[in-house]
Amino acid sequence: MENLIDIESISKEEIIKIIDVAKDFKKNKKKSDVINKTLALMFYENSTRTRCSFEIAGQKLGMNIINFDANHSSLLKGESLKDTIENLYFLGVNAVVIRHSYSGIINNVMRLVKYPIKFINGGDGTHAHPSQALLDFYTMLEKIGTVENKKIVIIGDVSHSRVAKSNISLLSKFNADIHLCAPTYLQFENKSAYNVTYHNDIKEAVEGANVVMLLRVQNERHEDSGYPDSLEYKRLYETDTKLLKEYASNDVILMHPGPANRNIEVSSELLDNRVGKTILEQAQNGVYVRMSILNTLLERIGE
Amino acid sequence: MENLIDIESISKEEIIKIIDVAKDFKKNKKKSDVINKTLALMFYENSTRTRCSFEIAGQKLGMNIINFDANHSSLLKGESLKDTIENLYFLGVNAVVIRHSYSGIINNVMRLVKYPIKFINGGDGTHAHPSQALLDFYTMLEKIGTVENKKIVIIGDVSHSRVAKSNISLLSKFNADIHLCAPTYLQFENKSAYNVTYHNDIKEAVEGANVVMLLRVQNERHEDSGYPDSLEYKRLYETDTKLLKEYASNDVILMHPGPANRNIEVSSELLDNRVGKTILEQAQNGVYVRMSILNTLLERIGE
Amino acid sequence: MENLIDIESISKEEIIKIIDVAKDFKKNKKKSDVINKTLALMFYENSTRTRCSFEIAGQKLGMNIINFDANHSSLLKGESLKDTIENLYFLGVNAVVIRHSYSGIINNVMRLVKYPIKFINGGDGTHAHPSQALLDFYTMLEKIGTVENKKIVIIGDVSHSRVAKSNISLLSKFNADIHLCAPTYLQFENKSAYNVTYHNDIKEAVEGANVVMLLRVQNERHEDSGYPDSLEYKRLYETDTKLLKEYASNDVILMHPGPANRNIEVSSELLDNRVGKTILEQAQNGVYVRMSILNTLLERIGE
Repeated sequence: MENLIDIESISKEEIIKIIDVAKDFKKNKKKSDVINKTLALMFYENSTRTRCSFEIAGQKLGMNIINFDANHSSLLKGESLKDTIENLYFLGVNAVVIRHSYSGIINNVMRLVKYPIKFINGGDGTHAHPSQALLDFYTMLEKIGTVENKKIVIIGDVSHSRVAKSNISLLSKFNADIHLCAPTYLQFENKSAYNVTYHNDIKEAVEGANVVMLLRVQNERHEDSGYPDSLEYKRLYETDTKLLKEYASNDVILMHPGPANRNIEVSSELLDNRVGKTILEQAQNGVYVRMSILNTLLERIGE
Repeated sequence: MENLIDIESISKEEIIKIIDVAKDFKKNKKKSDVINKTLALMFYENSTRTRCSFEIAGQKLGMNIINFDANHSSLLKGESLKDTIENLYFLGVNAVVIRHSYSGIINNVMRLVKYPIKFINGGDGTHAHPSQALLDFYTMLEKIGTVENKKIVIIGDVSHSRVAKSNISLLSKFNADIHLCAPTYLQFENKSAYNVTYHNDIKEAVEGANVVMLLRVQNERHEDSGYPDSLEYKRLYETDTKLLKEYASNDVILMHPGPANRNIEVSSELLDNRVGKTILEQAQNGVYVRMSILNTLLERIGE
Repeated sequence: MENLIDIESISKEEIIKIIDVAKDFKKNKKKSDVINKTLALMFYENSTRTRCSFEIAGQKLGMNIINFDANHSSLLKGESLKDTIENLYFLGVNAVVIRHSYSGIINNVMRLVKYPIKFINGGDGTHAHPSQALLDFYTMLEKIGTVENKKIVIIGDVSHSRVAKSNISLLSKFNADIHLCAPTYLQFENKSAYNVTYHNDIKEAVEGANVVMLLRVQNERHEDSGYPDSLEYKRLYETDTKLLKEYASNDVILMHPGPANRNIEVSSELLDNRVGKTILEQAQNGVYVRMSILNTLLERIGE
């Protein structure tokens, strides 16, 4: 594995290796191989979890971290992203995590950059968020052992969700039984391209589910787009304790990439009980998974 | 001591312990017990001194520091402070320093958060600024040995000052003779709630004073509020060398939480002479006091 | 050497020492003498290269770094730069790198500050950018051995360029044959103050050149100033492979402080070939030169 751009580009074996190394980090059985290597964080969109998670992962590995401030950088002087990243490489940066609102921008810039800096996609537009899918997978394995033939339901605006797409891609590789639940017009245009089952009705979707993964209602992305308002969405798709108890499997786990809108896509009461705690455990696992990603990409880089 | 929210919530013994440990750090007699623990700085208001002071304190202790950028965080996506902080805890953050313009917000959020992250109030609205009061106390003890029965005069807009309130609370515990000097309408509404002496006249207030603590004229908080303009304030309440020489005790020390408005609440000439240097020594002591706070709150946290 | 404000204030011997120590850092033959010392970065103008370069240099030396956020600092409360820097000194900061749009501001503030914090000019207005000139000199020595009697051509808006001025100052000390090429109205008003040869025509300027140093067309500085528009500038002064091949010395090296405007002052094709790579090597050398500057200024500071 040379970079982490999307799930499609990595193999099952590479995914399993990342999960195994993350387990070792979590159990404190593995030492860092990347002490004093340098990681640059380039975040062109708001983020708490992903940026802090990579920063803490880097710190725990003993890396040096550069927080590249997109708003005060030379990009405002018209410098292209390619030139910025090549410059960072020559300054000694070994890997960059990029978050950006343009789908596919990281694939593009990676093709242009001629030097062996490592690229990690921290979320690009509606395209991919591979480290999120990997930490979600880690959490599912930890909680239910395997995803094979398990019913995994993703509820929300899947068509605009990089989290959903990366999860579908990963879970397909491991033969999960994937279900998507959303109003029809928020499902994929090209439905048959995905090997999933579609639902409009949340009860039907959650029936017997082993994993219920909620997506965030992204009000900030959908202004004036015909997206349902929050109250309409809540009425049809809010997940609460009663719904899970009546319809889902007994051992169902709840997931959410965060930040959750309380009492919109998930009831506040559910978030704060034992079941909702899995969402915080996802965040915790994310640090170990990102340590594993960084260590795996950079362990063989010479000083 | 579990958190540092305000002075009212901690005991004299806890205060003395913080001072003693700070002394040991200043004398280089104490090693950090919190190496590789993680501190998040969440500053929702402008700050140089307090943020840098905590950051440098954390660095000197060998901690990992996360500068949580309030302007680019998921709070802009509507995430509540409680959820943000619980998420930070699961990411591995051991303590947060919060500065915020809302009085009492840290007490509120602390009650909501269910996990044992440590809270440090870095200044909340007009409520409290306990680490400032502790470093002021440290500096007074260093300079005049004790505050008991010493005349300590706080000059300025005490009613809106979190610094004044935390200092009054702390100095009351140690039986100082506390005097407040301000125009009547900037003194407390509920005057009798505080065991202090009130003055309008600065000469009367400073008469025999051992400590003269100035507050910043906070022009940015008082627009259109009937607050006196800066020139009016200067005419009535500017402290200068002549005033101290004529009225204060011979060994008087000058304090100011900074940043000072030169030639408004304090003459530029006084700031730059030997007496004014105490204000910089306060800043220096602040680093040791914050090292002590961090070490004390976190020394028993497991890895 | 006590500070690094401009090239005029340091001697040839001091420059040679900085270059020699930088070489040792590059060859990994020198250990840091400044571990755990504290560097503050105060950047009041956009910057990628210089800020990241100093930050990475500090990290490689094992220093603690404070990124002073000019936009959220107490300067917004009216605190003067002198007071901010004296405060940083008492917080434990050993050196500051300042970038600012006002020419000469660092000389001014240095005279006001009474405590032995070290000042490094990271670029002030149109005055000076000494660390850039030092890294340019390092790169020239590395590539062509000496600058003595070598033809070094600086092309672009020299009159507003702090990079050009610091380079002219440094190269004059070492007896380079300096040529400036620009439209007349972008050359110095006081032409005879500099021991250089002036050209309007780029072919004449580049004739036999050993070093061609391009300056950035700074569109953001010249609005409504009668500066030529980018296309006019490109037509007259764009450097490309053909120009260098036809007119320059066979061993010519291309330099640019970055970020370059592709297809304005330099052709994209030239930037991306072997000759253009020197510009990235400048960036790489910059880290070693800044490690040398920091180590040299701070090696004798007591803990």
